[in-house]
Amino acid sequence: MLGSTHGSLTTDSRRARVVACEDRTSPVVHGRPADAGELDVSGRPLYADVPDLDRFFRPESVAVVGASDTEGRPSTGITRQLLSWAERVGARLYPVHPTRPSVFGLPCAPSVSDLPEQIDLAVLLVSDPLPVIEELGAAKVKFAIAFVSGFAETGERGAAAQARLAAAVERSGIRLLGPNTNLNAFERFRDDLDGPAIALITQSGHQGRPVFALQELGVRLSHWAPTGNEADLETADFISYFSEQGEVGAIACYIEGLKDGRSFLLAADRAARRGVPVVAIKVGRTETGARTAASHTGKLTGADDVVDAAMRQFGIIRVDGLDELQDTATLLARARAPRADGVVVYSISGGTGAHVADLAAEAGLRLPVLSEARQAELHQWIPPYLSVANPVDNGGHPVGDWRGRKIIDAILDDPEVGVLICPVTGPFPPLSDKLVQDLVDAAEHTDKLVCVVWGSPVGTEAAYREKLLGSSRVATFRSVTNCLTAVRAHLDHHRFVDGYRSPFDEAPRTPSPSFRKARALMRPGEQLSEHAAKQLLRAYGIRVPREQLVTSAAAAVRAAGLVGYPVVMKASGARIAHKTELGLVKIGLTSASQVRDAYRELTDIARYEGITLDGVLVCQMVERGVEMVVGIGHDRLFGPTVTVGLGGVLVEVLRDAAVRVPPFGEDQARAMLLELRGRPLLDGVRGRPPADVDALVEVVLRVQRMALELGDEIAELDINPLMVLPRGQGAVALDALAVCR
Amino acid sequence: MLGSTHGSLTTDSRRARVVACEDRTSPVVHGRPADAGELDVSGRPLYADVPDLDRFFRPESVAVVGASDTEGRPSTGITRQLLSWAERVGARLYPVHPTRPSVFGLPCAPSVSDLPEQIDLAVLLVSDPLPVIEELGAAKVKFAIAFVSGFAETGERGAAAQARLAAAVERSGIRLLGPNTNLNAFERFRDDLDGPAIALITQSGHQGRPVFALQELGVRLSHWAPTGNEADLETADFISYFSEQGEVGAIACYIEGLKDGRSFLLAADRAARRGVPVVAIKVGRTETGARTAASHTGKLTGADDVVDAAMRQFGIIRVDGLDELQDTATLLARARAPRADGVVVYSISGGTGAHVADLAAEAGLRLPVLSEARQAELHQWIPPYLSVANPVDNGGHPVGDWRGRKIIDAILDDPEVGVLICPVTGPFPPLSDKLVQDLVDAAEHTDKLVCVVWGSPVGTEAAYREKLLGSSRVATFRSVTNCLTAVRAHLDHHRFVDGYRSPFDEAPRTPSPSFRKARALMRPGEQLSEHAAKQLLRAYGIRVPREQLVTSAAAAVRAAGLVGYPVVMKASGARIAHKTELGLVKIGLTSASQVRDAYRELTDIARYEGITLDGVLVCQMVERGVEMVVGIGHDRLFGPTVTVGLGGVLVEVLRDAAVRVPPFGEDQARAMLLELRGRPLLDGVRGRPPADVDALVEVVLRVQRMALELGDEIAELDINPLMVLPRGQGAVALDALAVCR
Repeated sequence: MLGSTHGSLTTDSRRARVVACEDRTSPVVHGRPADAGELDVSGRPLYADVPDLDRFFRPESVAVVGASDTEGRPSTGITRQLLSWAERVGARLYPVHPTRPSVFGLPCAPSVSDLPEQIDLAVLLVSDPLPVIEELGAAKVKFAIAFVSGFAETGERGAAAQARLAAAVERSGIRLLGPNTNLNAFERFRDDLDGPAIALITQSGHQGRPVFALQELGVRLSHWAPTGNEADLETADFISYFSEQGEVGAIACYIEGLKDGRSFLLAADRAARRGVPVVAIKVGRTETGARTAASHTGKLTGADDVVDAAMRQFGIIRVDGLDELQDTATLLARARAPRADGVVVYSISGGTGAHVADLAAEAGLRLPVLSEARQAELHQWIPPYLSVANPVDNGGHPVGDWRGRKIIDAILDDPEVGVLICPVTGPFPPLSDKLVQDLVDAAEHTDKLVCVVWGSPVGTEAAYREKLLGSSRVATFRSVTNCLTAVRAHLDHHRFVDGYRSPFDEAPRTPSPSFRKARALMRPGEQLSEHAAKQLLRAYGIRVPREQLVTSAAAAVRAAGLVGYPVVMKASGARIAHKTELGLVKIGLTSASQVRDAYRELTDIARYEGITLDGVLVCQMVERGVEMVVGIGHDRLFGPTVTVGLGGVLVEVLRDAAVRVPPFGEDQARAMLLELRGRPLLDGVRGRPPADVDALVEVVLRVQRMALELGDEIAELDINPLMVLPRGQGAVALDALAVCR
Repeated sequence: MLGSTHGSLTTDSRRARVVACEDRTSPVVHGRPADAGELDVSGRPLYADVPDLDRFFRPESVAVVGASDTEGRPSTGITRQLLSWAERVGARLYPVHPTRPSVFGLPCAPSVSDLPEQIDLAVLLVSDPLPVIEELGAAKVKFAIAFVSGFAETGERGAAAQARLAAAVERSGIRLLGPNTNLNAFERFRDDLDGPAIALITQSGHQGRPVFALQELGVRLSHWAPTGNEADLETADFISYFSEQGEVGAIACYIEGLKDGRSFLLAADRAARRGVPVVAIKVGRTETGARTAASHTGKLTGADDVVDAAMRQFGIIRVDGLDELQDTATLLARARAPRADGVVVYSISGGTGAHVADLAAEAGLRLPVLSEARQAELHQWIPPYLSVANPVDNGGHPVGDWRGRKIIDAILDDPEVGVLICPVTGPFPPLSDKLVQDLVDAAEHTDKLVCVVWGSPVGTEAAYREKLLGSSRVATFRSVTNCLTAVRAHLDHHRFVDGYRSPFDEAPRTPSPSFRKARALMRPGEQLSEHAAKQLLRAYGIRVPREQLVTSAAAAVRAAGLVGYPVVMKASGARIAHKTELGLVKIGLTSASQVRDAYRELTDIARYEGITLDGVLVCQMVERGVEMVVGIGHDRLFGPTVTVGLGGVLVEVLRDAAVRVPPFGEDQARAMLLELRGRPLLDGVRGRPPADVDALVEVVLRVQRMALELGDEIAELDINPLMVLPRGQGAVALDALAVCR
């Protein structure tokens, strides 16, 4: 490559006449839903089947392999549990044991193949499920559950055993839940509750129990999938399946790690297309959490910022505590689509209203000031010295009579209002019982969301237990924070699904014309020279400064003439880091003699430092823009990622960057920029012109295309800085680092 | 001032020989507690009396002025309430009414002066309390409560009426609670509960009710002060008083606004000295909240970041929701001082442990890895394949027998461990009842903190209601987040009070030698020239570059020779903003001819722009440091404030700054720097040397001294940039803006 120069220096007349790039293809692809088996250009699936799990959750015939009735053995307890479950739901249960003649009075078959009918579900209580799998497959068993632990959660040997088990399962044609799981799917669900239900997925049975207990507060649960180590069936399978069940209003997940990033995203995509909210706890915010989670079910947690971004891209609502999971999933399961995003805080005390309104505004909710007409209406029933602009303070007394209901109806009647939040700070029965009754009644007659925050820490009061929990139309919370988190999630969810376009429909299936050119530049295992890295960018239509690579002072002077003064000169070679610190960059050179001197100095320094050069770059100087960084990273769970952040030493310190997992659309590229705290720099500060954000978005999308086409061959790519010029003038990659895998 | 130059250019041989400053006095003052009436140099009190409120909370003789027994009138309800309260506590109650002969069968006196004994407390149910005040004073009544609303919360006229009321109260010698308050202080407190109590202060009765209801969960409450509009007695008075009551373990506050910043800080200081934790909700995080709070009790909320800083300076724990207030105040009231800051998470499920440990680490708690020896001890009772490093996962079974208690005791026995957190995710009686019993028993035999997070949303389970709530030694929570918030507050509180030195003891009482010099430079209502502003800094011992103000090109050349090349030249005048943008700064001038040209150009631009100069500054050029901003602001509640932040355009956008309210010590000046997200820049990044943080801290303290001595005369002071040189080389104020009031 030594001594090579660009044959032609393209200029772009639509934009500033300063920059060279090649590919003019738009980075946006127009989409269609993928068919089964279709792959994107990175080789990752664009489609995932929805497994039919009807017979898993409601099996008619069940074999208990390793059944026992010897007192004191864990398998005896499980056998007993299954017997009582089978009796309750009317399933046929068959104990299987190689030596026992009978278990709890039921005759034992020596193996599954000896059973009189085809089995929907085999519960494996054996210490090693591997030898049984082939037999189950031969007997056309549909599903199996493996209880035993000691697999991937215990380390490398366990992981290898789990891989053997997974391979056997795949060969057999059965679908397996576990290992390292339990019988939570067959708990006693209440069947007397109506309305949309929560479906629950947990990677720890214990962590699901508080959500399951919501039934005792009148919240319907439809399913519980305790996924354990996920040798076969994984969280994604259950998200997909639950998204298609009409009775499911929301999916609640407790996730420690993911088996596969892509299958998770495809499942989330299915839920988003169907408008089914997914609320999830995901362990791994810290190293402590990641380490502990891995030793529990043996899965990767992934880099937390990438997980966080991936969830947001597909509308998954991430929460922290189990109480938040309960409250948010309940609201999202039950609440209808909002009619408006305006929130009104209504209370019987000005103090309470002020407090909740303050926290609601802080949480990013919109509290519209009610119209003059509406306020006049409310003042028919509320004394004139109380504020009813929003928050609405009724001062207490009107609650006691017919006016209480009138006020609530008038607020809910306002077209600006989608949500009414009423904090009831304490049980003061004469007022609070009547207030609660009015809220419950009003909620029956509106399609708007009525929320109550029950402030008393006691929770045994009749108004709470009987009236509020007895209503599935009022959303009841025990803390303001959880109420606001849930309402925010509810509004965000509907905003998200209403505008959702699946990025998988638009993901490129075939390589772009850039790809062949780019491929030729790759040097496996090596870091490319700056010049080569920039050629890679040019191949993908990302503009770089006019520049030439030269190997003599005379050539440098000729190049400077072609490039145009002032110029920048930089040492170029395969493995140069910290060019600026070493003095290997000279800027603002305005004459042939300065160029000659600079050439000599750069090559002298390189010789002194023992650095091999492939030449010296003579580059057009680009100033007056906002310095950004755009790059490609690699996540163990999700594969290639795209990052954009602000450049410069300060933001290197502040780590002000946003990340996304491909594929994503232009909307997400723009959303990335909104996440940057330094965003105002792009809008123009201190009288500077606004930067060309459209051009920056285009670069992000072109880098995404590179990530998709080359991502698994690139270990690292960083454009640093990308100079984003004033609006209408484009963006130029001034330097780039590319390391091939 | 035109043409003035410094007589001498002092150099500091201990530091870099580059910088001029005058005052070498250390900004730190060695302290002693103030006496009553003593003021700091800004004229603000250094001492506040603790009002004796014993007879307010436990009055023996009570007059009800405006008593009524006419059905349907609000005052009748209140009279009835007071009668039943008086009977309960054995107080003597006297109805007072100008015309009624009797109320509820009790004879009425026409006025307080007609009563047979001296009155501790007069409850005023009259529509205008003002005319009654003088009479109460004459009758030597100790306390009064005014119920009526319509004062400062309603706007300007109400505020004027409140001011008249306050003045009358001050003249009378009585102490008044209200107006716009109620009878919460005389609610029925449970007297069957033991241990340290919560004392409650609320600016809204309604908002106190959920905390008051904690008694139903077995938490002792000792007092409730509903302060209303605070015409006289204010939140600060109650904080001071409660700090001195031995039975009070923690003070819980709901604050909408403060009457006076300094009295609040003095009260917080008293609580900090006595080690009594104050937990507070403070409304006003948003404009919505600030506006609504003002219309509720008519007080200033203050700029929220200043309020936040002031609270942190004095160790007040700020929380958001009432549930957080309940949980944090309860823990802080009851828990003993921690023996260690190590936290262990203990659970019967690896999933639960992983989740809680993740959130605990995220919340900033320290989760030490238990020693090999301790782990070996735990593995006597816990199977070897479960992790007991921390979190400790017992797998469930050991809980069922004698091992359960052994495990808990072994964890609590570890000297690294101060806190054990055990999440009990759901009511699974065979295990959870036993687990809870072991925790309750173990807590009785340790002085370490045992916390349980009860995960079930139901809360009617016997293990929760009877065992956990029945124990005042186990801290029980309903959400992990609240538990972690409270534990963090508990550890922080003790760390804070253990290291607390009152800044009031060290606050300067008399002006420094700098003050007279500085005073002479002030120009009321005007913005000082850069040169004058720098003289102000020099007077306070803050170094500025060597510089001379000149009024001719020839003088500029002479000055450059004295200052030393290279130099910076800047236009100087009383009202120049945006010097750089206007081209009124020339940097890196290296020769006499460049200086002459620059002089001409600067004066030309000024003439063209119509700017009056007092001359041109010829300054020493200072490069290679970290640019910071240090300034003085003014808060409506707290008076002068000191701010430090990172300089430069990026951080101007990111607003990376910390604020403090004087007086504060060196510890707080250092803490300010730790709050900066860009802090790593001071420690040195990309191979740059660490900056002279000690010099920066000294500048912050010297600016504090200015704020104290001149704060009320300065509207705004900004050192921007303060160039902080490499360690050992000091810090130099390169530019300064000062606006006098």
